[in-house]
Amino acid sequence: MEGKDTPMQNITPFILFILKCSTIGLGAVALLLALKLYNDIKKLPAGTGKLFDVAAAIRTGAFAYLNEQLKHIAPFVGVAFLLITFTIGFDSAWTYLLGAGFSLLAGFLGMNAATISNVRTAVVASENKPKEALMVAFNGGSVMGLIVAALGLIGLGALFFLYGTPAHHEAIIGFGLGASSVALFARIGGGIYTKAADVGSDLVGKTEAGIPEDDPRNPGVIADNVGDNVGDVAGMGADIFESFVSITIGCVAVAATLSLADLGSVTTWTLDNPESILLAQKLAMFTPIFQGVLGLIACLIGMKMMYAFKEGEPAAALRNVTIATTVIYLGLAFAYFMFMPGVKFSLFFTLLVGALTGLGIGFVSEFYTASKPIYGICNASKTGAATNIIAGIATGFNSCAMPIIFIVLATAVSHWVGGVYGSALAGVAMLSTVAITMTIDAYGPIADNAGGISEMSGLGEETRAITDKLDAIGNTTAAIGKGFAIGASGLTALSLFAAYAQVVQSGSRHVDLSITNSNLVIGVFLGSIIPVLVAAYTMSSVGKAAGLMVEEIRRQFREIPGLLEGRSDAKPDVQKCVEISTRAALSEMRLPGILAIASPVAVGFIFGAEALGGFLLGVTVVGVILGIFMANAGGAWDNAKKFIEQGLIAGEKKGTDAHKAAVVGDTVGDPFKDTSGPALNILIKLVSILALVIAPLLK
Amino acid sequence: MEGKDTPMQNITPFILFILKCSTIGLGAVALLLALKLYNDIKKLPAGTGKLFDVAAAIRTGAFAYLNEQLKHIAPFVGVAFLLITFTIGFDSAWTYLLGAGFSLLAGFLGMNAATISNVRTAVVASENKPKEALMVAFNGGSVMGLIVAALGLIGLGALFFLYGTPAHHEAIIGFGLGASSVALFARIGGGIYTKAADVGSDLVGKTEAGIPEDDPRNPGVIADNVGDNVGDVAGMGADIFESFVSITIGCVAVAATLSLADLGSVTTWTLDNPESILLAQKLAMFTPIFQGVLGLIACLIGMKMMYAFKEGEPAAALRNVTIATTVIYLGLAFAYFMFMPGVKFSLFFTLLVGALTGLGIGFVSEFYTASKPIYGICNASKTGAATNIIAGIATGFNSCAMPIIFIVLATAVSHWVGGVYGSALAGVAMLSTVAITMTIDAYGPIADNAGGISEMSGLGEETRAITDKLDAIGNTTAAIGKGFAIGASGLTALSLFAAYAQVVQSGSRHVDLSITNSNLVIGVFLGSIIPVLVAAYTMSSVGKAAGLMVEEIRRQFREIPGLLEGRSDAKPDVQKCVEISTRAALSEMRLPGILAIASPVAVGFIFGAEALGGFLLGVTVVGVILGIFMANAGGAWDNAKKFIEQGLIAGEKKGTDAHKAAVVGDTVGDPFKDTSGPALNILIKLVSILALVIAPLLK
Repeated sequence: MEGKDTPMQNITPFILFILKCSTIGLGAVALLLALKLYNDIKKLPAGTGKLFDVAAAIRTGAFAYLNEQLKHIAPFVGVAFLLITFTIGFDSAWTYLLGAGFSLLAGFLGMNAATISNVRTAVVASENKPKEALMVAFNGGSVMGLIVAALGLIGLGALFFLYGTPAHHEAIIGFGLGASSVALFARIGGGIYTKAADVGSDLVGKTEAGIPEDDPRNPGVIADNVGDNVGDVAGMGADIFESFVSITIGCVAVAATLSLADLGSVTTWTLDNPESILLAQKLAMFTPIFQGVLGLIACLIGMKMMYAFKEGEPAAALRNVTIATTVIYLGLAFAYFMFMPGVKFSLFFTLLVGALTGLGIGFVSEFYTASKPIYGICNASKTGAATNIIAGIATGFNSCAMPIIFIVLATAVSHWVGGVYGSALAGVAMLSTVAITMTIDAYGPIADNAGGISEMSGLGEETRAITDKLDAIGNTTAAIGKGFAIGASGLTALSLFAAYAQVVQSGSRHVDLSITNSNLVIGVFLGSIIPVLVAAYTMSSVGKAAGLMVEEIRRQFREIPGLLEGRSDAKPDVQKCVEISTRAALSEMRLPGILAIASPVAVGFIFGAEALGGFLLGVTVVGVILGIFMANAGGAWDNAKKFIEQGLIAGEKKGTDAHKAAVVGDTVGDPFKDTSGPALNILIKLVSILALVIAPLLK
Repeated sequence: MEGKDTPMQNITPFILFILKCSTIGLGAVALLLALKLYNDIKKLPAGTGKLFDVAAAIRTGAFAYLNEQLKHIAPFVGVAFLLITFTIGFDSAWTYLLGAGFSLLAGFLGMNAATISNVRTAVVASENKPKEALMVAFNGGSVMGLIVAALGLIGLGALFFLYGTPAHHEAIIGFGLGASSVALFARIGGGIYTKAADVGSDLVGKTEAGIPEDDPRNPGVIADNVGDNVGDVAGMGADIFESFVSITIGCVAVAATLSLADLGSVTTWTLDNPESILLAQKLAMFTPIFQGVLGLIACLIGMKMMYAFKEGEPAAALRNVTIATTVIYLGLAFAYFMFMPGVKFSLFFTLLVGALTGLGIGFVSEFYTASKPIYGICNASKTGAATNIIAGIATGFNSCAMPIIFIVLATAVSHWVGGVYGSALAGVAMLSTVAITMTIDAYGPIADNAGGISEMSGLGEETRAITDKLDAIGNTTAAIGKGFAIGASGLTALSLFAAYAQVVQSGSRHVDLSITNSNLVIGVFLGSIIPVLVAAYTMSSVGKAAGLMVEEIRRQFREIPGLLEGRSDAKPDVQKCVEISTRAALSEMRLPGILAIASPVAVGFIFGAEALGGFLLGVTVVGVILGIFMANAGGAWDNAKKFIEQGLIAGEKKGTDAHKAAVVGDTVGDPFKDTSGPALNILIKLVSILALVIAPLLK
């Protein structure tokens, strides 16, 4: 007999009410803290003269793009809203709108903070205060981290008040669909923008003209720095918001559709009457949402601890804050499962497994993108660009095995502990500390921008050394974060997939989800095409746009007298490059976006629920493999180039043939890791959540 | 009431006996024809002096490698033979040995013909007789085509005599396993050999030293030409033999395990007594084998027609002979299904669908590797190697969609016509004309070698122009053949997969092959890792070996005085390069080979029959996608370089920056299309056939 026995059922509804209120309450507090942090950063000196101008140009360009993007996304969201209203119902439609709106809002607010933090980081760095500069960039990221977690908790908490029962939970899924569909567009658009500018500027500036990165003579550098904000901040923000919301909703949906037998294995209560069944189910549905509350508390403590960590090595500081936050969260989760009535304590182990899996995937990503395999790529660079590319692709392929084995182990262990609900909960643990994940991810582009601004406004070697170091840390954490994100996506997709199977099999009609069903196998094959097409479209968009950028920059260097020589009267036409990136991003994001959304709907309505089940499996398996491959290959090429530049390879340095070969690899890796890979990441969740939304219509 | 009514049952056993005899008989005839053709070629002049020496060096190197490879494969085959004897039984073990032996034999005999035809093609070309030269290369390929088809028919025909009943058919599967496992080693070993030599020689010779391909000063050229024989002839031969045998056996296995209801839908007889059931089933099992007989008859007619076709354009001749053979085969198949008692005529349509699908996939491959998308890659080359690589990868990804849609359509239509048996039969149609497929595939490296020999022995511009043209046709047909091969592999894997599911579900134990079974999903994910790891290992093997080759060739150019200047007393040490390729191929083929064989066995015995079912699905889906991607991306890069060299891109030619960028892409594409891609092709069948062999042990 456990301590949490049946009499406790009587007070559980009251406890649940308090916890629900605390979800929204903590979300509101986090928003206020973000506002305070934002105001604190704003009070710091924003620089003067050239410094101020450059920062303003970046900020203006970034918001101009985001406004344009909004105009392109809004009609799509509007149409989807109407479609959902008339097919599924208004409840799912307005929550869809809310999810889409929150996702856009997270991007806007986060980018707002990032574009004031970048220049202030540069100013503080120019005063030779590296630790303080680190904190400005970190706090800039924190604003976004807090906003993402807060919007997620407020949204999920409010919707749980309204629709937190098994019978009405479908409306909550709409929220996830809104977040996912906006995230896909924002990530693809932002990803194309940033990489077109980055690749284009580097190809002409660094490779052809031999001038440094972010050199003010290069007309593409403003676009490049704008790209960091619209892609790596706003796009990434929408992405992480979506990941957090999707993984939580996946678990909520699994909980809402659990069979009585499965429910019995996750509660301590005897399910002998309708009231206790309903209460146990509500509790199972609320538990994943509440992990976000516990995670946010852990993050707030972690952010405070950062002020102590900053005294050590900056790279160690970021790693320590991540680990500390995870440990604190696990402690809080331990307490929750220990004391919460009706919830089996053993479920805590699924969260433990999930968190460890997240860390494990992170370490594997670090291994393949920043350690031994990189030396192999560097050596391959000595015999030219072709062998560099072969080695990078092989490294990327190699890196797929361990993360997938981790996902498989996490699924197996958590399923053994808590059935299908346990597996879903394992994924939740990976994103419960989303505020810190987002903070560190946003820190990267802020530090990168700070470096760009320093270079462009001529702040000098010393400042650049500080910002370079801050930037380098950001790169490694970004690579780890990407591996982690795709792992979480895999688990999310599996949860959503389980929920989908439960929904379509719950009716009276016989749905054969066996792999001997040729209809289902057809779905698997059709599903396998989608990730490769999305990768193909996004890569060729970057390639095409970068080509236009190269021609424009070459033209300016050729036609503007004195530009390349750095004459003070020769000014590059940066606006033209911003326009190229903007136009390319907006026109090219449509096709992959529409493909991702239309294909599951078409498969579902043409081939039926069985084929759609196979389709989800196909998209997930190929999407996860390709996503890991692209993220890690891209990261590996990036670091191979950096290893050579840092003199870690005997006899090689900037400008040698091996370095030139490594630059080719780095350039190929850019769209891999920052456009296609992240798009796949969202794709697999979007497709699954969409299937879940339309599932009731297929029966 | 159809014409083929029940009374016909009485004479059917007799008809079946005649057809079985004709299978072995036609196989024997084809072997004799191959011998005659071989002797005819041998009578042609073999050249003198330098010409003779170069050809002899290639032939000696190729056989030396094949002997070494045999020493490495033999112990593996021996161990497998013992393992099978003691776990499955002696019947499957000796057929395994037979399959392995036939596969090795096909490679040896085919390469024997190829290495006498290459130099004779060069001699005939030097006499300025292009049409005759085409015929020598074609006939050299025909020897191999006839041998592959003959060995397949003799093996399958003889085994059907011994084990052609549902109760004993497992022993026939052993034959397929032998063919598959040898093919994997031969393909990987040969693929690493040829690409290490090719990439290494090109990187130093063409790119660094600026000397032509196959220039006698380059120490790597003999190894490169040896590689064409051991990889593209012997390896490819084992590969195609395996494809033919596997697809036939997959259909035999499906037929042997059909349920009574499914059997009823493929026969015209009423299945009301055990005799008619058994006879109908034997007929269903024999039908796929007999398609090989009909196909071989069509090929023999096609080979005769080639003497007429050769008068037109050589490219058209090869295309026409393929189409004519397919049409003749379909006519014969039409007659078979029309007149054969007990076989439903409607099944003919599955063969029609299969043949059309094969052609369709071939056309798609041609589109993506030789038409519009190539101009996109060429344009991308103008902005450097990085954009060339990005464009090539995007093209490869894009090219995956249509072939998979074709496979899906073929599966759907043939399943609708004839259930799971119909789908299996559709695949058989794609390889029934294997003799012509093999002929054209072997023609390519013979023509390529003829060019190499001409260049190395200084036969002059005119001869080289003829051999270049013959070679160019071979390249296009090779690209088409590769797309076709992966399509056929996909269908084969699906048949074998269906047979596996039937076997594991036939017992009394409940096997849940539903995708809601987490065990099965774990299998899918584990399966998805294997193709990427095989791709990673084979690519990095080529990269590493090519690196060694580059260093050796650079060393020789540096240390042998007068070599690069072409002084007559300066001789390259070609043997050293042959050794590097040999050593690399033999040591590097082990890991991917063992992974492919050990992984399904491990998954089956550790996680059970359900996980192994998922595993097969994962390997197939990811293997097919990756295989198409690698084959087509490689072909596209190859042709992009050729388009520039042929002056099809305004302002670009050999030596321009765009051409240099295209050479990088071509070099990356080499292991894609000739090492990793083909390995994946065999992998997916090997894994499925292995699962089918161990399936009875898992129950």
